[in-house]
Amino acid sequence: MPQPANPEPVHDHDAMLSRKFGKEVANYFSGSPLNRVGFLRGDHKFLSQALNHPSTKFLLCNDLQPLVADKAGDKLAYVKFEDVQKVVGKDPYDTTEEAMLSSYDSGAYMPQMIFLGIDEKSKDALSFTNKKNTHTGAPYFAIDVTPKKSVQAECEKLIQELKGRGLEFATGRVMDIVAADAAIYAEARQLLDWNLRNPFCAQCGQPTLSVNGGFKRTCPPKDLSRTASKTTSGISNALPTTGIQPTDASERPPCATRKGISNISFPRTDPTVIMAVINHAGDKILLGRQKRWPPYWFSTLAGFAEPAESIEEAVRREVYEEAGVHVGRVVIHSTQPWPYPANLMIGAVGQAIPEGEKIDLGNDPELDDARWFDFGEVREALRVGTSGLGEDAGPEYKEGGLRLPPPTAIANQLMSSVVNGFANGVAKM
Amino acid sequence: MPQPANPEPVHDHDAMLSRKFGKEVANYFSGSPLNRVGFLRGDHKFLSQALNHPSTKFLLCNDLQPLVADKAGDKLAYVKFEDVQKVVGKDPYDTTEEAMLSSYDSGAYMPQMIFLGIDEKSKDALSFTNKKNTHTGAPYFAIDVTPKKSVQAECEKLIQELKGRGLEFATGRVMDIVAADAAIYAEARQLLDWNLRNPFCAQCGQPTLSVNGGFKRTCPPKDLSRTASKTTSGISNALPTTGIQPTDASERPPCATRKGISNISFPRTDPTVIMAVINHAGDKILLGRQKRWPPYWFSTLAGFAEPAESIEEAVRREVYEEAGVHVGRVVIHSTQPWPYPANLMIGAVGQAIPEGEKIDLGNDPELDDARWFDFGEVREALRVGTSGLGEDAGPEYKEGGLRLPPPTAIANQLMSSVVNGFANGVAKM
Repeated sequence: MPQPANPEPVHDHDAMLSRKFGKEVANYFSGSPLNRVGFLRGDHKFLSQALNHPSTKFLLCNDLQPLVADKAGDKLAYVKFEDVQKVVGKDPYDTTEEAMLSSYDSGAYMPQMIFLGIDEKSKDALSFTNKKNTHTGAPYFAIDVTPKKSVQAECEKLIQELKGRGLEFATGRVMDIVAADAAIYAEARQLLDWNLRNPFCAQCGQPTLSVNGGFKRTCPPKDLSRTASKTTSGISNALPTTGIQPTDASERPPCATRKGISNISFPRTDPTVIMAVINHAGDKILLGRQKRWPPYWFSTLAGFAEPAESIEEAVRREVYEEAGVHVGRVVIHSTQPWPYPANLMIGAVGQAIPEGEKIDLGNDPELDDARWFDFGEVREALRVGTSGLGEDAGPEYKEGGLRLPPPTAIANQLMSSVVNGFANGVAKM
Repeated sequence: MPQPANPEPVHDHDAMLSRKFGKEVANYFSGSPLNRVGFLRGDHKFLSQALNHPSTKFLLCNDLQPLVADKAGDKLAYVKFEDVQKVVGKDPYDTTEEAMLSSYDSGAYMPQMIFLGIDEKSKDALSFTNKKNTHTGAPYFAIDVTPKKSVQAECEKLIQELKGRGLEFATGRVMDIVAADAAIYAEARQLLDWNLRNPFCAQCGQPTLSVNGGFKRTCPPKDLSRTASKTTSGISNALPTTGIQPTDASERPPCATRKGISNISFPRTDPTVIMAVINHAGDKILLGRQKRWPPYWFSTLAGFAEPAESIEEAVRREVYEEAGVHVGRVVIHSTQPWPYPANLMIGAVGQAIPEGEKIDLGNDPELDDARWFDFGEVREALRVGTSGLGEDAGPEYKEGGLRLPPPTAIANQLMSSVVNGFANGVAKM
């Protein structure tokens, strides 16, 4: 397995700015090289040009797993439009969004496509003028080529062709590709997954249509398949020729999401807290372990933020629920996108209050164990005991020593910051 | 109108901890006095006892608006179980969750109830032992008493009764109640709204059932209303008496959310970035305004985080999209729950890169204007020019001067931190 790519700072000016704030931790799955140009997503003239431009790259996913160069590949394998044209058709963006809405047919299957953004560093790229600004870059799309429904045969054929070229779909969690590709894949995976998970409107129960380059699902007021099914079941859908106002059999019942803006039309991201909790003296870290983890393996505590609580409160609640420890001051350290399936990891450092350090697993028995570890032991484990969950620790690791997650996990970054002086009173972020 | 309550630090040890990290900003809608004891939500024995305990408080909402003491009230008005018993029934928790699931009938209306948590400082409170730990506190519930469906008459009657006692439902956005009540209302509102917005399963389109004290919606495998409708439409649902395996007419088509854990079964919170952006020299703040705001009114830029981007990246993207400014280093300051309808405001401070300070509104024309303001002007406006959006500025405000949001908005807290030295190189958080 290749070594996990260490994310690099995105901005050239980090060094300069670090004089004020310290260096920013850029976590794995962040640091995308793409400008999402989200304001162009609804513009089918742009999307159509982007689809057909020679600079454009297509990331294919099968059951959410991305195409890579080979099984040990540390890079995504991008393909050209000619490779996928038989799956998605000549130009899915040849009409406007309005036209797509008015001709919506829930019975027709269209493979999910996501417009990911443009790489502005690419040469010979597409230039597109939107109002007074021109945007230039190589467009990136993600396409779901899972063999199913009307495109099953075409997808199977494509997958065989790709195999012939030495290209495979990754297996398991993708945590070993280079940082820039990891960020691009994270965007693709999270959006494909959200579309797949939400084919129906949670407000009214009717099927929805993917629009805005895959960043929105809308509940159309009409559905041609309603007309079709009425015909099938023997109910005439012929319009009356005279006298009565014709009723459109494709019209659907009203839905509240069609008025104004509803958050359920937009992709969901679940804020999650993950925290390195230090004791009041500032020389120990609280770590926990789950039953299914390998022996000696621990990590920082984590959990989903709940509705209507601040991140600072969510940190205190989770640590109390899982370990019985009472946390006072909380400082947010950095954040990490986590596309399994839709988490935003918000990394924090918290400090226990003096009389709140006693560990109690009895509130919510989620953890197998939780313990206070000396900074020194954690520092040594960060040096010799880190690895991916299914992998072996490094050669210097000795059986019985503390094992910890790798640098691609924000847990590792939080622990590193803390043992390197994050909490010693000087600005370290 | 009463002065907006300034949130107070939640923990007694803040002063002590501030020696290391500085004082924590506790934003409005955070700082709940309740322990949510989320691990008790699925325990109907507990919920049933909680419902009937004399210490229990009920927050009633009508169309998501909370009951307050009177129209100018700065406190929520809580009622007793006897007040709402006719609306919710003697004990909605008298069976287990499993029993509720197997007798699910999508045709039956049950007013939404939320178990909010317990106030552990309350006297004569409920004690409940869960495994080895005993939890003591006054339980809090929220109940939707919007007059509709089967409880319309009872709700209307209750609302009249409450009116007779001088109690009214608040109108408009609730931003003037004391901080502790604001946090309790935020929890109630966001969860009631989420349940109301998601009566159907986004995965399969079938109606869902609220469980876990209002913190989960599940897609039951059966629905008694299916049997009922078959009977109504003349199809016999009598079971065959012999020979053939009886098929259960109430059984529903399969749904992926019934296998394992799906995030769409749980409440949604939308992470939002809001940022005080300073120029590279560190003496100006970038502020923007929307067309619908009063003259001279500006605030910090803000927007939804997108799937698979870190908060640091979301800050850079939003500032680029809305104002054309390029941000380098980003530091997260504090967070604020915002229950209109489900936002988590993640407040950050960002710094423009030297050649990225030029304002350009041409990418995504969301803003009416954006400008760099000197710290001095912002400091003065924070002193004399703040108010709620529909309200007048203070007596010292002079027409034409900068107007800003009130201290209950995290935007105000971010600007205050920045002009008070957040970015001057010393730890201020």
